[in-house]
Amino acid sequence: MREVVVLGVGMTPFGKFRARSLRELGADACWDALADAGMKPSEVQVAYCGNLAGGLLSGQEAGLGQIILREVGIAGIPVTKVENACSSGSVAFREAWIAVGSGLYDVAFAIGVEKLTEGTTAEVTTALASAGDMEMEAALGLVFPGIYAMLARRRMAVYGESIEQCARVAIKNHRHGALNPRAQYRNEITLEEIAASPMISDPLTLLHCCPIGDGAAAAILCSTDVARRGSRPAIRVAASALTSGLFREDREYVGFESTQRAAAQAYEQAGVGPEEIDLAEVHDCFSVAELCHYEDLGFCAPGEGGRLIDSGATALGGRIPVNPSGGLLAKGHPVGATGLAQIAEVVWQLRGEAEGRQVAGARLGLTHCQGGNVQGDALATTIHILQR
Amino acid sequence: MREVVVLGVGMTPFGKFRARSLRELGADACWDALADAGMKPSEVQVAYCGNLAGGLLSGQEAGLGQIILREVGIAGIPVTKVENACSSGSVAFREAWIAVGSGLYDVAFAIGVEKLTEGTTAEVTTALASAGDMEMEAALGLVFPGIYAMLARRRMAVYGESIEQCARVAIKNHRHGALNPRAQYRNEITLEEIAASPMISDPLTLLHCCPIGDGAAAAILCSTDVARRGSRPAIRVAASALTSGLFREDREYVGFESTQRAAAQAYEQAGVGPEEIDLAEVHDCFSVAELCHYEDLGFCAPGEGGRLIDSGATALGGRIPVNPSGGLLAKGHPVGATGLAQIAEVVWQLRGEAEGRQVAGARLGLTHCQGGNVQGDALATTIHILQR
Repeated sequence: MREVVVLGVGMTPFGKFRARSLRELGADACWDALADAGMKPSEVQVAYCGNLAGGLLSGQEAGLGQIILREVGIAGIPVTKVENACSSGSVAFREAWIAVGSGLYDVAFAIGVEKLTEGTTAEVTTALASAGDMEMEAALGLVFPGIYAMLARRRMAVYGESIEQCARVAIKNHRHGALNPRAQYRNEITLEEIAASPMISDPLTLLHCCPIGDGAAAAILCSTDVARRGSRPAIRVAASALTSGLFREDREYVGFESTQRAAAQAYEQAGVGPEEIDLAEVHDCFSVAELCHYEDLGFCAPGEGGRLIDSGATALGGRIPVNPSGGLLAKGHPVGATGLAQIAEVVWQLRGEAEGRQVAGARLGLTHCQGGNVQGDALATTIHILQR
Repeated sequence: MREVVVLGVGMTPFGKFRARSLRELGADACWDALADAGMKPSEVQVAYCGNLAGGLLSGQEAGLGQIILREVGIAGIPVTKVENACSSGSVAFREAWIAVGSGLYDVAFAIGVEKLTEGTTAEVTTALASAGDMEMEAALGLVFPGIYAMLARRRMAVYGESIEQCARVAIKNHRHGALNPRAQYRNEITLEEIAASPMISDPLTLLHCCPIGDGAAAAILCSTDVARRGSRPAIRVAASALTSGLFREDREYVGFESTQRAAAQAYEQAGVGPEEIDLAEVHDCFSVAELCHYEDLGFCAPGEGGRLIDSGATALGGRIPVNPSGGLLAKGHPVGATGLAQIAEVVWQLRGEAEGRQVAGARLGLTHCQGGNVQGDALATTIHILQR
């Protein structure tokens, strides 16, 4: 594998855009990324598009990448849709990385798009549940809010973690989101508001859960040779790891073995340790998840997640800012777009273009996405490390 | 890109298996491929799973590859679902080829699976239409049988091709299918039966159309180093090409520009011409399509497709046998499985293991799949050339 860099990124605001179609959202992100990379549509040689629910909610299962690219004047090239539940955008990025790294292509487009405001609440809930194991879990009632509520209860029992510590993740990420013009929610929230929001799955109230929304994000990856011909700063892909879960290893049920394993692979590839990471965008689909990720990514010891959020280390200005974009909780989580929105945030941070939420002097950023049946073998965890 | 070989293939029979789930069908094909390759599950390092309608018909949109692999004792590795309409199985094979070719992995699983007997006829028809452009075509009534009926009419007008010449494709492929123990239909059919079958989209009657069915197929790809350590014959991947359509180039509407372009790329990669191909498995979703593919793949000149089928050249025993497996028309077309079933057939042919339908002395075989909105930019055409 040869070295691969990110030359451009793009992202729509995340939110509820009922009047805009998948193709419009996707095309907006693509135009942004092309402009950011200083590239013409004709320079793109291959593309991957990540999406979960286009078939279930918009009736567009196939050809989504081609349909989006046609809108920006790209046709004829190899385009493949990839899907790995909430990791769909991340795996689009990863496949683009492999395609360029292999030497087969010099310039690749990675696109992530999702429209969740199409359909009734029941339809959207079913579409999201289809990311789990429908035959063995969802059919028995084990859907995502329940899975994460059990995780929160388990961490309370094993580590003595409190629901207030979980809530502090939501408070921090909303504070960060308020600084991000592309975030779905730009309001700060309080402990009291979180506790008073409707109960979803005990002990997780509504504000412990990421919202439903629409959006798209995209990245252009290329060889170092191509990057040198342009004038844009190239951000190096220092590591890319994808793992599936090993359920039998997760018996403690206080975190995610698949994240631990992906992190070990990614740190080894990049030749760095967790203490060298300047910022991270992680998969905070529910508040408690971020506390697990602190531990599984090595930002603190097992069981120390609650104390790490309490210390302020993961807030902007802290030792290791996590989710400076607002994360899934505040920036939003249009499933297929999330992985590439994380990449876009880290690229902006490493270039010093993150404005009010800039992590000063950031050189190494990490993205972490996970999707699929959460405590089962189908959990797909994707980690990327980007380097200025 | 380093050289990649196919070490093992597997395939379920194609047919209507209402009592069997996606995971069971997929696992059967995987066990077959592992046994065929002489490999242990623990040797597989990465996997790609091709599927179109799992989300729409079975409710299992995500994690399908992981769920199938768990059944054969494979967990923890990177697994990604890929989708490109009727090319989904082919792009799973292609991504596995890139993953091994890049040097990142030594052994990759490509899996294709589909279950179309789950749901009502209306649901299945909607799921298949979702492979087209739902917003711009299907919503206006332009679904696949109509698209191919117009193609047949257009070829009649431009080339003077007859509906009997189209029918001869179905007759030939059913004759081949009758020799294939895994084919969905193993009965020979006559011109009269084809003409008398129910009209689907004038001039195409039912027996001009491939059937609805279930099934799975899989292949194990590896580096030449790994292949040398085993005792199985290695079949070389001499070329892999994937194109999207260029609608503006298809104004004549008598064939597929995306196939012509993918073929040119594949022949150049393999360093061979169409006259050197010993057999081909092509995407005969409707009888008329195979006549286009003869021309677009260079097996005859433009407009000569009808005369080529008349000559018998594409039947077993002819100059260039096409669809010795029975093709989509007789072997069946469980969408996501088709591309890998084509690979399996060509591997068996090149190894001399195709029994009653063996093409004598075959050294070079070609597979051709196309999916997506057929005369639009989203048409995904995949061509592979395999070499003994």
